[in-house]
Amino acid sequence: MALFAAILRSYRSPALLRNPIIGLMKFHSTVTKLTGHSSVFEFDEYKEAKAKMVDEALNAAVPVQHPDIIHKAMRYSLLGGGKRVLPVLCIASCELVGGDESLALPTACAFEMIHACSLIQDDLPCMDNADLRRGKPTSHKVFGEDAAVLAGDALLALAFEHIAAKTTKAVSSERVVRAIAEIGSAVGSLGVVAGQRMDIQSEGKEVTLRELEYIHAHKTARLFEATAVCGALMGGGNDIEVERLRKYAGSIGLLYQVVDDILDVTKSSEEMGKTAGKDLVSDKATYPKLMGIEGAKDFAAKLETQALEELAHFDAARAAPLYCFANFVAKRQR
Amino acid sequence: MALFAAILRSYRSPALLRNPIIGLMKFHSTVTKLTGHSSVFEFDEYKEAKAKMVDEALNAAVPVQHPDIIHKAMRYSLLGGGKRVLPVLCIASCELVGGDESLALPTACAFEMIHACSLIQDDLPCMDNADLRRGKPTSHKVFGEDAAVLAGDALLALAFEHIAAKTTKAVSSERVVRAIAEIGSAVGSLGVVAGQRMDIQSEGKEVTLRELEYIHAHKTARLFEATAVCGALMGGGNDIEVERLRKYAGSIGLLYQVVDDILDVTKSSEEMGKTAGKDLVSDKATYPKLMGIEGAKDFAAKLETQALEELAHFDAARAAPLYCFANFVAKRQR
Repeated sequence: MALFAAILRSYRSPALLRNPIIGLMKFHSTVTKLTGHSSVFEFDEYKEAKAKMVDEALNAAVPVQHPDIIHKAMRYSLLGGGKRVLPVLCIASCELVGGDESLALPTACAFEMIHACSLIQDDLPCMDNADLRRGKPTSHKVFGEDAAVLAGDALLALAFEHIAAKTTKAVSSERVVRAIAEIGSAVGSLGVVAGQRMDIQSEGKEVTLRELEYIHAHKTARLFEATAVCGALMGGGNDIEVERLRKYAGSIGLLYQVVDDILDVTKSSEEMGKTAGKDLVSDKATYPKLMGIEGAKDFAAKLETQALEELAHFDAARAAPLYCFANFVAKRQR
Repeated sequence: MALFAAILRSYRSPALLRNPIIGLMKFHSTVTKLTGHSSVFEFDEYKEAKAKMVDEALNAAVPVQHPDIIHKAMRYSLLGGGKRVLPVLCIASCELVGGDESLALPTACAFEMIHACSLIQDDLPCMDNADLRRGKPTSHKVFGEDAAVLAGDALLALAFEHIAAKTTKAVSSERVVRAIAEIGSAVGSLGVVAGQRMDIQSEGKEVTLRELEYIHAHKTARLFEATAVCGALMGGGNDIEVERLRKYAGSIGLLYQVVDDILDVTKSSEEMGKTAGKDLVSDKATYPKLMGIEGAKDFAAKLETQALEELAHFDAARAAPLYCFANFVAKRQR
């Protein structure tokens, strides 16, 4: 706690406050220097506590019941050891604007349901035709294609139902409605669906950097944006806070994808739990392929900086989890 | 108008009011006798006016934009000449409880989006593997399987977004949230998805009447229920009204399916615009197969009566569209 107080004191010095960017970089590097990692307040513990809470809520939200195969398929993709990246972002965004974690929990769960739905569908024979996901057989390999498609639908519908039915009355219905509109837009034909379509369409073709960014902006970053936006809405954030978090999360979402691409060419298959280097072999466009490894790493650093710039406008203590979240996404090894 | 007033006078006689069931049957038969059909206030015009309004709203809701193929696929299934049965039910339910049609319009559109999504998916190679729908090639035949699956997702997401973003401020957000929870539940793993799964699972097997009813109660009737419930919610209906409309629509939904099955064996392929008799040929369970044609017709009459019983509790003039709607579903020839 003394360490944390010292860091906050240095961050709040008048000189640094005049230039928030320098301030936050200073904050960031001080944290890293003094603690050896970014978790000034034990980010790993924070992340694991949120993930555990989300896991329990997801487990309760999808009991095995008739028809068994559908609910088993839903649980297989939903509870199969995901990193819970979106739920942590959602809850941390809620807390950043002063809300209690319980306000954002149903929304955080909804994003994990949507994420699980998108994984099931990405793997389908008519999409990526993947046999493995997280080192395990893909949903359609285990449950059959029809059950996989239906489980995906059910997860998407449940996401909306879950927010509408489970969000505490402490959140106004106006905010719930705004969040649902945001999520529908992020998932739909101008969001994730558009990204997935352009991804499939670009396979085996020469893809420009602009096209690659379109794919990831829509397929990944748009969902990150909606996650942070809805977390902030649940937490009572005002419009300016919500839009700052949208920008933060958009940069982090793109960063997540760039790091994924970099890891793909630098890590072995065993370490990644999926077929590493597969994207290069399959001639799929990636950032390292279009920019080189160093170019991709520079781009990743730029995206992280962009994200952190948005956080500089918030209370530094409350923003600590999202500073660490950015660092976690940038430095993750799998 | 004089005719209508005469009918209402006869319906409101004290003797009939003491027994609302007899009252509504009398009302119904009087209408039919005096007009030669059920449209005492021109139901065909009513239905067409609502359908036109919905078509225009749907057309505006899904403009062709990038990525073209997704939006074209969405429009192909959404604007392809459906009967707009669910939207008419939704708006009529809203009006029954005293709401203006404009309150329910976005919700009515949302049900048509969900319906279009379910048609795309039912036809997929991994589901019914159908080549034709409404006499036209199915979505995956025209746009490819990946675009069809994505268009289905986009329509489902848009349904929720559309209600959340487009419902007029005259409807409280509390009611919008309740409607979204209802729709998510109706579509999900205990609703349409469950019915579709059991439908696929039962193909080529001996199916009992109970199993057949499970399929249609979940695949069709549940969506009818939600449609009427949400229409009533938008119109400001109280809980008793909402639940009466749920029962009405549940019976009508099952009736719709029974009539579909009867038409399938009694009409020729040309008249139906799809491969008639296909269900019998493919050994698929249907009501006529399990009950005989006459048994199925008796069951249809029972379902219509059950539905009409619920309407007897409402103002007869306001209920006229839903009386006629029941008759329309029961007597339709395609």
